[in-house]
Amino acid sequence: MPRRKTRSTSSRGPRDERGVVAKRILDVACAQFADLGYTRATLRSIAGEAGVDPALVSYYYKSKTKLLDACLEPPAEWTQRISEAASAPIRTRGAALVKCLIYTWEHDRAGANFFRTSLLMAAHEQVARERMVVGFAVHILGAVAAPLDENERLLRASLASTQMVGLAITRYIWQVGAIATMPGEDVVVYIAPTIQRYLNGRLS
Amino acid sequence: MPRRKTRSTSSRGPRDERGVVAKRILDVACAQFADLGYTRATLRSIAGEAGVDPALVSYYYKSKTKLLDACLEPPAEWTQRISEAASAPIRTRGAALVKCLIYTWEHDRAGANFFRTSLLMAAHEQVARERMVVGFAVHILGAVAAPLDENERLLRASLASTQMVGLAITRYIWQVGAIATMPGEDVVVYIAPTIQRYLNGRLS
Repeated sequence: MPRRKTRSTSSRGPRDERGVVAKRILDVACAQFADLGYTRATLRSIAGEAGVDPALVSYYYKSKTKLLDACLEPPAEWTQRISEAASAPIRTRGAALVKCLIYTWEHDRAGANFFRTSLLMAAHEQVARERMVVGFAVHILGAVAAPLDENERLLRASLASTQMVGLAITRYIWQVGAIATMPGEDVVVYIAPTIQRYLNGRLS
Repeated sequence: MPRRKTRSTSSRGPRDERGVVAKRILDVACAQFADLGYTRATLRSIAGEAGVDPALVSYYYKSKTKLLDACLEPPAEWTQRISEAASAPIRTRGAALVKCLIYTWEHDRAGANFFRTSLLMAAHEQVARERMVVGFAVHILGAVAAPLDENERLLRASLASTQMVGLAITRYIWQVGAIATMPGEDVVVYIAPTIQRYLNGRLS
């Protein structure tokens, strides 16, 4: 009887529940990888905090490597959002990229988790740096005016990334200084011209 | 006889040797705090890598907290260097700050160690963020044109810090993209105008 009742509640059926549990494991894994580092976070510690059996973590994600892969996978919504920002009209593209970063951190939990894990792991894990190139830098490169030659495009994308990374770390990870407390609109006003110059302005 | 011989070699006398050992312990501690985090680095693990007895670490640095303090202490040479950069003629001050950052990472081992430890620990340790304000941000604040009101000075210093931090992390910690491989002179050309605008340029 109870089993039948559970199954009949469609929004709580086994399939949805499965998704919810897998998602909870992923959230905990992202946080533990970010805070403890890859070595110290274990399938057991992740299972413990998620309140599930370690076997269930292995069942959903196969291995610790694959679980890390899932954490460093850019969420589809984020990819869509940054693609749009990167193809905004060129004159407002710097602002669009800064707005995209702010929106993601402040209104998109999965996107913010992805960012946080990537930024915190990048210092210690080569794989996190490589994945950041695919999930983030490639979009910045896409935002650089296309007619330029390849080297200049890579240069400009790299310069824009230094400012985006510095902004994300000081405002959202360290949360220090005026940059951490000002409204998002002000961040756009102050930082977007820097990104814009790196994208298509005069460099020297 | 051997003892007397050792003592008579003035450059290797007990006092210098003491300094050498204390310095080696400090170098190892900075690296372990940066790479393992405060919790995982222990007096024992630091002593092990430095090849000394743990009691000697305690003898020189009293406690783990005090050892961390020493790692986050800006080296005197670095303080002198950034003070000079922060008081360079205002029109070239952005370039002076970027040059100072590059010189420190590339030619001053103690300064680079201090930076690396501070940047890597800041994500997880409040004390590292607080010390960075004293050892780094205060100099950037000193570089902002003095006649401005306090809020604007704090705003400008914070903006400049976002770019300095992003530059240091992408070029020296992550070592990704064009920013990591270009000559220091090019970094100055591309990044100094950003710092200069934040210091005394038009913000909006």
